[in-house]
Amino acid sequence: MTFQPVSGAGDRLSEQIEFLCAIDGLKRVQRQTTLLDGSRRENSAEHSWHLALYAIVLAEYGGDLDVGRVLRMVLVHDIVEIDAGDTYIYDEAGQATKQDRERRAADRLFALLPADQASRLRAAWDEFEERETPEARFAYAIDRLQPLLHNHRTGGSAWRRHRITSEQVHAKNAPIAAGSPRLWELARSLIEESVKRGDLGP
Amino acid sequence: MTFQPVSGAGDRLSEQIEFLCAIDGLKRVQRQTTLLDGSRRENSAEHSWHLALYAIVLAEYGGDLDVGRVLRMVLVHDIVEIDAGDTYIYDEAGQATKQDRERRAADRLFALLPADQASRLRAAWDEFEERETPEARFAYAIDRLQPLLHNHRTGGSAWRRHRITSEQVHAKNAPIAAGSPRLWELARSLIEESVKRGDLGP
Repeated sequence: MTFQPVSGAGDRLSEQIEFLCAIDGLKRVQRQTTLLDGSRRENSAEHSWHLALYAIVLAEYGGDLDVGRVLRMVLVHDIVEIDAGDTYIYDEAGQATKQDRERRAADRLFALLPADQASRLRAAWDEFEERETPEARFAYAIDRLQPLLHNHRTGGSAWRRHRITSEQVHAKNAPIAAGSPRLWELARSLIEESVKRGDLGP
Repeated sequence: MTFQPVSGAGDRLSEQIEFLCAIDGLKRVQRQTTLLDGSRRENSAEHSWHLALYAIVLAEYGGDLDVGRVLRMVLVHDIVEIDAGDTYIYDEAGQATKQDRERRAADRLFALLPADQASRLRAAWDEFEERETPEARFAYAIDRLQPLLHNHRTGGSAWRRHRITSEQVHAKNAPIAAGSPRLWELARSLIEESVKRGDLGP
């Protein structure tokens, strides 16, 4: 997107407005997760909102967290998908190139902002990706829990579409434990129940 | 929605999960605002995410704000629309009954949560509605600015659909000034430009 001066705004505000307009594109990025009423697949913008509410409501299961920091991470973590697309967690070929594609996207998108804000939002994105702080591990945990819960409540809709097995679900969701042992306990019982119901292949 | 115990969760976590599942419904509430590529109308969940980014990026124009507080307000402010629907700001008949409908929705939806969290989230919702704090006035300002900007960039798409005049737009958006004089200055120049282009009737 080329820089367009915004009428009535100086250069700084124009850059901020261009960024806010560019990220409108996240509403058009489709994920594999199904809405709970089964009507359609979720997009990455509404998913990010949902995760922010997960963060506010479930923070107590992540230990002594700075919730504001978790919020910033979940709100920006998917913005790179505007350029890189959503990569399904069980798509191994896509996962192999994801980091490069998403880094290039982060380089372009955050740079639309004034430099001070670009570096602050990029730092939040990097923190989420690196998963080294308790806040990042918790943000990652809820980003895994939400699609698992939607699969559990919609008869394994995305799992069935991609013939995912319980071994794959266990392996990809085990990092929930590092963010929240309690939420991993919940996740395991949801997986177990889905297997029992026949919604998830063993 | 009746209370369903969640396998692997105690009562508190079950209530929290039920709330997080109930609010999935916000993704199905359609607003009048058009996406910037003109492809479809926006829903209230993705709108709430977009506003959270507006809060992070534009906070400097709201004075000395507690941004975390603004974030909580914009993230929960539309949840009531799951029951009450989105009421277009220029729909005067709808506006007359909006407060009652939304209050009943708030009573039901926040009560799905454990009592301590229900009262904290309800307080954030009430704070937004009352517009008495600088954070609430700023949250309201960006909630007005975003649809205005989308109208400005899509040839006045929602304004045209409802034959809205510049007088109406001025009147409904003037409260932006109370949250941010700078953003109101921007809003006025966007309105003026839309009138000049013929996208908004005088």
